[in-house]
Amino acid sequence: MTFSTAAEAEQAFYDAFRELDIDAMQRIWADSPDASCIHPGGGLLQGAESVIDSWRSIFRDTSPPQVEHRIVQASADNRLAVHTVEEHVSSGDGQRHAVVLATNIYINRDGSWRMLAHHASLPLVEREPEAGALH
Amino acid sequence: MTFSTAAEAEQAFYDAFRELDIDAMQRIWADSPDASCIHPGGGLLQGAESVIDSWRSIFRDTSPPQVEHRIVQASADNRLAVHTVEEHVSSGDGQRHAVVLATNIYINRDGSWRMLAHHASLPLVEREPEAGALH
Repeated sequence: MTFSTAAEAEQAFYDAFRELDIDAMQRIWADSPDASCIHPGGGLLQGAESVIDSWRSIFRDTSPPQVEHRIVQASADNRLAVHTVEEHVSSGDGQRHAVVLATNIYINRDGSWRMLAHHASLPLVEREPEAGALH
Repeated sequence: MTFSTAAEAEQAFYDAFRELDIDAMQRIWADSPDASCIHPGGGLLQGAESVIDSWRSIFRDTSPPQVEHRIVQASADNRLAVHTVEEHVSSGDGQRHAVVLATNIYINRDGSWRMLAHHASLPLVEREPEAGALH
């Protein structure tokens, strides 16, 4: 399976997430030790195997969530593409909703775009950072 | 001021942060509506002006923090570079320490690398994501 644009790979990523389809999820990731993933509140996962394992763990015993994504900003070069994405995720039972901000990085190798990195975080506050905050 | 590599721009970014130098911080960012920044737990800031304002607010009334950064993974094309970085940040008074994971995106325009996006988040947990988590 090849993805001719980063947006196409991204759509497949969110489809796999929505459908809890681990095989589809695996196909969209770059099969590389450079692959990395940061889930909201989680540590850094490095290497395709660790990344896929984390998604397998998330998909297990979960009912399919609702996931909508909106590309807020996109930049691309010949081989790299960066998308800033707002994800609207609701749990399968509709009890939990979250807005997740994600930076998605895609790489073009062997004629197909694949996900190289997914960095997602949950905005805890919707205001300007305080003076004196660590960051 | 020009930065001949993404790593050089990144060093200048962390130097500006460490020294609470808003002018230096401004110089390393791409002066573009595409510039974006996500502080740990914060929402998405878009456009160079909003981004710089947020740093100005963070720098105000803060004593210089200790900031060390370690590039965990780097990918680059002609015009775009992506770094995954582990930041070790301590407040000026030494009371608070945090490990922050950041995805830093650099763009090469007019012969200089500048920061296009900074997405930072605080790992709340250092374990595998739970099954049933939203993400």
